[in-house]
Amino acid sequence: MLINNKNYKTIWYNKKLQAVQIIDQTKLPFDLDILTLKSLNDIIKAITQMKVRGAPLIGATAAFGIYLAYRELRDKEHLEEAVKKIKNTRPTAINLFWAINKMMKKIDKRKTKDENENFLLREAEKICNEDIEACKQIGKNGFELIKKVSGFKKDTVNILTHCNAGWLATIDWGTATAPIYLAKRKNIDIHVWVDETRPRNQGASLTSYELNNEGIKNTIIVDNAAGLLMQRKQIDLCIVGADRVTTSGHVVNKIGTFLKAAIAKELNIPFYVAIPFNTIDWDTENFDSIKIEERDGDELRKVKGIDEDGNIKNIHIYPNDSVVYNPAFDITPNKFINAFITNKGIIKPNKEGSFKLEK
Amino acid sequence: MLINNKNYKTIWYNKKLQAVQIIDQTKLPFDLDILTLKSLNDIIKAITQMKVRGAPLIGATAAFGIYLAYRELRDKEHLEEAVKKIKNTRPTAINLFWAINKMMKKIDKRKTKDENENFLLREAEKICNEDIEACKQIGKNGFELIKKVSGFKKDTVNILTHCNAGWLATIDWGTATAPIYLAKRKNIDIHVWVDETRPRNQGASLTSYELNNEGIKNTIIVDNAAGLLMQRKQIDLCIVGADRVTTSGHVVNKIGTFLKAAIAKELNIPFYVAIPFNTIDWDTENFDSIKIEERDGDELRKVKGIDEDGNIKNIHIYPNDSVVYNPAFDITPNKFINAFITNKGIIKPNKEGSFKLEK
Repeated sequence: MLINNKNYKTIWYNKKLQAVQIIDQTKLPFDLDILTLKSLNDIIKAITQMKVRGAPLIGATAAFGIYLAYRELRDKEHLEEAVKKIKNTRPTAINLFWAINKMMKKIDKRKTKDENENFLLREAEKICNEDIEACKQIGKNGFELIKKVSGFKKDTVNILTHCNAGWLATIDWGTATAPIYLAKRKNIDIHVWVDETRPRNQGASLTSYELNNEGIKNTIIVDNAAGLLMQRKQIDLCIVGADRVTTSGHVVNKIGTFLKAAIAKELNIPFYVAIPFNTIDWDTENFDSIKIEERDGDELRKVKGIDEDGNIKNIHIYPNDSVVYNPAFDITPNKFINAFITNKGIIKPNKEGSFKLEK
Repeated sequence: MLINNKNYKTIWYNKKLQAVQIIDQTKLPFDLDILTLKSLNDIIKAITQMKVRGAPLIGATAAFGIYLAYRELRDKEHLEEAVKKIKNTRPTAINLFWAINKMMKKIDKRKTKDENENFLLREAEKICNEDIEACKQIGKNGFELIKKVSGFKKDTVNILTHCNAGWLATIDWGTATAPIYLAKRKNIDIHVWVDETRPRNQGASLTSYELNNEGIKNTIIVDNAAGLLMQRKQIDLCIVGADRVTTSGHVVNKIGTFLKAAIAKELNIPFYVAIPFNTIDWDTENFDSIKIEERDGDELRKVKGIDEDGNIKNIHIYPNDSVVYNPAFDITPNKFINAFITNKGIIKPNKEGSFKLEK
């Protein structure tokens, strides 16, 4: 998608540099910095420090991590340590584990080390390309839902989204945004309400930024505003992404998703979750056992922005002695979700095996 | 209540200076600045710029505004212009209109101008004292609810609050916090989850600050976190304040209140609204006609805090070209509210005339 009218992806392999390159998402929306990752260590830092984030992109980055680790270590046995390290970076995004397992299975002892190395690079790139295809398919499937509302309403379709499940969370197109980008290309009049998404403000910094760059009307609101807007019929439907979805359709996503889904159900506004199939956690049906990542309280206490002289500043916004708690995700039970917009079609949750049928 | 171990009220008349004094709440939690207001204009600026805020405190400040205006104008007829100006400062807090009307009725043409002036000062001070008494009574009534949970649970009582309905929103004691302060004095083990409350962060800057100063355990969370905490049974009850309550018990309060009330209902967690009776809008039963104050988008775009050198900085946190929308309040329909904790007792909403019976 576009940034300053130039096409980008979030991650790619640069043959000349023999390195992986990414957009540093912690610098957006203020700076567009391209980072070069040459080692397993670079990859781990990029994921941990959230220079890349979003479940599909974390998965793709981890895949490149396995490639770079193999290039360094040249040995499947030594690689196990690397795998552990990558798996420990972020516990929630199921795509991370999916991508690592997919990569590891491809290492073939009967092949030479060079052959394996080349094969792993091709496999990581394939994971990226397949993600793009999956997002496009999500776009096509979700587009039908938007088109229906547009046809019925004959006025601007207002969509609420939370956090960033845009192209910056994937390789290109995004999950929640793919239907929106397609609707724009098909000249449907759309407007997106963008939840700011505290504490890291990915809605404002990333979603609004990418929608602006693609020329899609959008308005940033605080996370508190959705109830009023829905009550006043200013939201027609909600589309969010997910970091993990259980087989029965419970959704682990950015903290705050549950609040929006619950109020949407209360006020009869459709709530959709857009995911590629590799976001499904096939080993988990219910959500009681899911551990929620707790992140550093400084993500709440400190805020980054631009001062009057144009310098990027980090400021402290809370009373000095205040305690904070920072769970990064919440769990939306399946009953609050109207449907999943997946690469394999629109799937209703809460029906035992509804995902499994399509697997 | 205490700030740095010294007792304060939010507003008082300083005889020596012949002026009203307030704590400048826009400087908290970083600076404790006492402002001196000598004219109607000072009062209007203080309310508009939110140097004072919170429905009961806005009411008291408006009362002093009428006194200062009379002192300047010495005439009930000229005062009408002043009344209009004060009424235009903030449209939502019903206490503002209540206090102005109460003051205006006290002007007696048969009295001398000096007599009227003195009487208005005493009346403004009486409004403050009555507010303190009402808050104490709210404290006593709400305390019984907390005591019951504590007795049943035999462990820390966890209370969620939104925005600041603490003593800083009133003259002393607060509305939502009065039961909490009383519970602390009666040695009940309590802990408060403080919603940060974007966009102005009054939860973090004011509520956590005042609870810290009173030695009450509290933890700041983002506004997005309540769903997860309630799902995990980390919240026993919610208490918030209100800017306006209709006769049938619909609640106009800080944006985000509705989301918390809806999720609390969904998860069977009691949701209480603490108000003095002068927060009731006797002229309004339903909420469709209530105009929601829309405030400047800069309240979202700009954030205030302390930089590494200890200087207060205002930084810009959004993409430059992003549009924002900033409605300041939302409306929680009565069905989401378990009860009102008022100065006249615990009152269930949704029963025609339930407030009127106590009026």
